[in-house]
Amino acid sequence: MPDTDYIQMWFQEIQDRISAFLSVEDGSPCLEDRWDYANGTGGGITRIWENSVLLEKAGVNYSAIQGSSLPPSAATQFQVSEGTPYTATGVSLVIHPHNPFIPTIHMNIRYFEAGERWWFGGGVDLTPYYPVHGEIVQFHRALRALCDEYEEDYVTHKKACDDYFFIRHRNETRGVGGLFFDHLCADLEKHTAFVMALGTAFPDLYRPFIRAHRDRPFTPAQREFQCYRRSRYVEFNLVYDRGTLFGLQSGGRIESILMSMPAVASWRYNWTPEPGSPEAELTEYYLKPRNWLAE
Amino acid sequence: MPDTDYIQMWFQEIQDRISAFLSVEDGSPCLEDRWDYANGTGGGITRIWENSVLLEKAGVNYSAIQGSSLPPSAATQFQVSEGTPYTATGVSLVIHPHNPFIPTIHMNIRYFEAGERWWFGGGVDLTPYYPVHGEIVQFHRALRALCDEYEEDYVTHKKACDDYFFIRHRNETRGVGGLFFDHLCADLEKHTAFVMALGTAFPDLYRPFIRAHRDRPFTPAQREFQCYRRSRYVEFNLVYDRGTLFGLQSGGRIESILMSMPAVASWRYNWTPEPGSPEAELTEYYLKPRNWLAE
Repeated sequence: MPDTDYIQMWFQEIQDRISAFLSVEDGSPCLEDRWDYANGTGGGITRIWENSVLLEKAGVNYSAIQGSSLPPSAATQFQVSEGTPYTATGVSLVIHPHNPFIPTIHMNIRYFEAGERWWFGGGVDLTPYYPVHGEIVQFHRALRALCDEYEEDYVTHKKACDDYFFIRHRNETRGVGGLFFDHLCADLEKHTAFVMALGTAFPDLYRPFIRAHRDRPFTPAQREFQCYRRSRYVEFNLVYDRGTLFGLQSGGRIESILMSMPAVASWRYNWTPEPGSPEAELTEYYLKPRNWLAE
Repeated sequence: MPDTDYIQMWFQEIQDRISAFLSVEDGSPCLEDRWDYANGTGGGITRIWENSVLLEKAGVNYSAIQGSSLPPSAATQFQVSEGTPYTATGVSLVIHPHNPFIPTIHMNIRYFEAGERWWFGGGVDLTPYYPVHGEIVQFHRALRALCDEYEEDYVTHKKACDDYFFIRHRNETRGVGGLFFDHLCADLEKHTAFVMALGTAFPDLYRPFIRAHRDRPFTPAQREFQCYRRSRYVEFNLVYDRGTLFGLQSGGRIESILMSMPAVASWRYNWTPEPGSPEAELTEYYLKPRNWLAE
């Protein structure tokens, strides 16, 4: 079996590096909560930036928990009997900046053990409000380079991301995708290296978006559009996201699970953007699975 | 089998009466959309008030749809085979006023046929932000009187409401309850009369809250608390609400299903109100199942 301590040490290191990155970009320290897992053993460290300079709401969470009974959402998926004892550890983050020109981003890297089985999962995906085409292409290029380096298949993980982060009832993707993978269990050393590389690469993946747009002025209408689109983020996370469901079903720490929620989300009945506007282009062009590297 | 046309006519009449009530209270006409059911036959009428005088966001929806295949959320529950053709008709409303002293309210009355089976369901429940104790008691007294008149058991339906509108991951009720009933199928005439009486009583149930508080000034902090609490409404509806899941699974008209969403919802990490404040009293006292009629 894999060396769980080593994996946990790496995950904590990644949380530290990403936290340092965000604190530097934001110019503010985080709020840190250390917590125990109420429904088993273990716990985690949640770091939050809220209503600070750059970040409207951002959280980077590390957890390492042991439970006596795998919840149904995970059991079905991995063909492990419901009720098998399990270990779950990982880093999960969601960043909602104030400025609507900076995309929201989510990353998760995780490791599970249940019975005799172990596997890695995770991914990263980007949810822009006012995307810049070249920046999206660059983001995907960086992800492909990372996959190539660790002999992971970019095309497979990119497609899995488009499939997973799809809001069925809206017939649109959550954002412009990225990578999504689960149940990596073929080669311990290779998967460990890949997952840790993704975590380590995070600041370089996201920094360009911050630097390009952090000082760009925006209008109240652009801010409203951002809040409106954030309601789609809420819809995805509460209706479809397996991580969120796993957390709710396993009696996880609610505030750490729902740190992914934006500070403000708004719903307007049957609203549609002006034809030809950047707001219309977002759904018509960007929120569909696309081969970014062919464009 | 019951006379479906008669039931649908009554439901439309109830939608009209409630719409007229809201337009009078608000002083504004609604926006009306008539729509066809994309995944079967039938359709509905959705009426919306948005950002008007009294109402920040309110919707009253009537629908009468026929589908060729009952979705899993309803099939499991009623022990009808998944895939049975069905008819569903009903009135559903959610009212989110601007003023945080006026509670949000939800009502639903519905009628289903699937295979050889038919049943009524529905209920009404209140979600206050700054509750006034006597008003909550009065609301429940009116519901008990209504149940008594139609030989329905208030205690059973009140408990079902507390059980149903429970946000498990927050360990709190969505609001102060009301009535909830489903699968009423024993006595067609009696159930029809009860359901129609509930729909007809709605203006009298809700008017007192509007009249008592519509002109009451509120602070920005009270407005913020309302937006914060509205995120719990979102959490309930998207994670637990069977009606919402049924709508999403059956390919319903999304904007009519999600009209229940508030205009604005906000999430703050791990926020807790000042001990002893009205905001603390809301969760500590009101958002627990209580016997309002014994108080």
